[in-house]
Amino acid sequence: MNNYVSDAVVRRLPRYRRYLKKLKAQDIQRISSKELGEIMDVTASQIRQDLNHFGGFGQQGYGYGVAELEGKLEEIMGLDRTYNIAFVGCGKLGQAIINYLIGNEPIYKIVGLCDNRPDMIGTEIAGIKVQSKEEFRQRMRQGIDILVITAPAVIAEEVAADLSGTEIKGVWNFGHTEISAKGVKVINVHLSDSLHALCYYINHPD
Amino acid sequence: MNNYVSDAVVRRLPRYRRYLKKLKAQDIQRISSKELGEIMDVTASQIRQDLNHFGGFGQQGYGYGVAELEGKLEEIMGLDRTYNIAFVGCGKLGQAIINYLIGNEPIYKIVGLCDNRPDMIGTEIAGIKVQSKEEFRQRMRQGIDILVITAPAVIAEEVAADLSGTEIKGVWNFGHTEISAKGVKVINVHLSDSLHALCYYINHPD
Repeated sequence: MNNYVSDAVVRRLPRYRRYLKKLKAQDIQRISSKELGEIMDVTASQIRQDLNHFGGFGQQGYGYGVAELEGKLEEIMGLDRTYNIAFVGCGKLGQAIINYLIGNEPIYKIVGLCDNRPDMIGTEIAGIKVQSKEEFRQRMRQGIDILVITAPAVIAEEVAADLSGTEIKGVWNFGHTEISAKGVKVINVHLSDSLHALCYYINHPD
Repeated sequence: MNNYVSDAVVRRLPRYRRYLKKLKAQDIQRISSKELGEIMDVTASQIRQDLNHFGGFGQQGYGYGVAELEGKLEEIMGLDRTYNIAFVGCGKLGQAIINYLIGNEPIYKIVGLCDNRPDMIGTEIAGIKVQSKEEFRQRMRQGIDILVITAPAVIAEEVAADLSGTEIKGVWNFGHTEISAKGVKVINVHLSDSLHALCYYINHPD
């Protein structure tokens, strides 16, 4: 086992798990790193190296047990537990992501919503009341694990300034603000990156 | 110059460009691969290898010209031109992405919208009329470069079946449908992947 896990490896774990989930749904029970690599368009050696960080799992000549490896990846990422999640920004993007989580990701329990627009404050989304920034400041201190930022930069910065002293451990940031707080991991989502990669392919057809 | 460019390299190009854009905004004119690597948390050798696919650009001992390299990356990805883009699915996610493009990505010109819900058909978003699937089938044949799928699987599959014979060269797919069409590059966006990576970090604090 190798202890330093690079961000690139961490970012590949969800993808491995997605493919394994699909294989499991197709009732495939074992797969070699070579076969998995072919489906995923990565090398077998990359897969083996990545998984070696966590102990390996494959048996030489027998490949990986699909359900077992999927379960192991869920454990590694902590997808075998639940998270209290709150949203700062309940506009279209926020609501789209709330709907997405409700429909697809039951381990995330939406427990708090914040928006500073007067017509939003006090309304309910998914059974949760939208709070003003001032009210939400209190809510933030009550057992939230993950904060999702789907709000304009100004509000995002103000909320981020209140992160310390809360139990929030991660920020899923769709805003275009630099957020940093001690002990809080921030993942910035850059929606355009994949659109720009698509443009590359459009301009470089096979 | 190396001709085969892997998907991993293509996926890193937008990120390089984002960092260079930020450096340019800070009036930084030159940067070494070492310095850039430190900011981006990748190795200098990775940066040099990636850029070598496209001719290199750096001068030994002088580093990269920030504005020049940013411009070159835009050229490589084709971000120095405009694209006609159309949306299938004008719900919250579709509208959030439309707003995002209008506010941040002027090279994408929204020219068509499709949604099959009776209360959406005929309404206008960003000055464009929402068309039913039947009307949109005609619109699809009139100079659209990129199709964005922000609709449920069923509609996505029906629209995808009509892709051939159009000029559409790329699909930016937020739906969870497998879409494939000859000569059309599809980029699937998996929003949860970054959330799952965040969970990994929450469960493996430094």
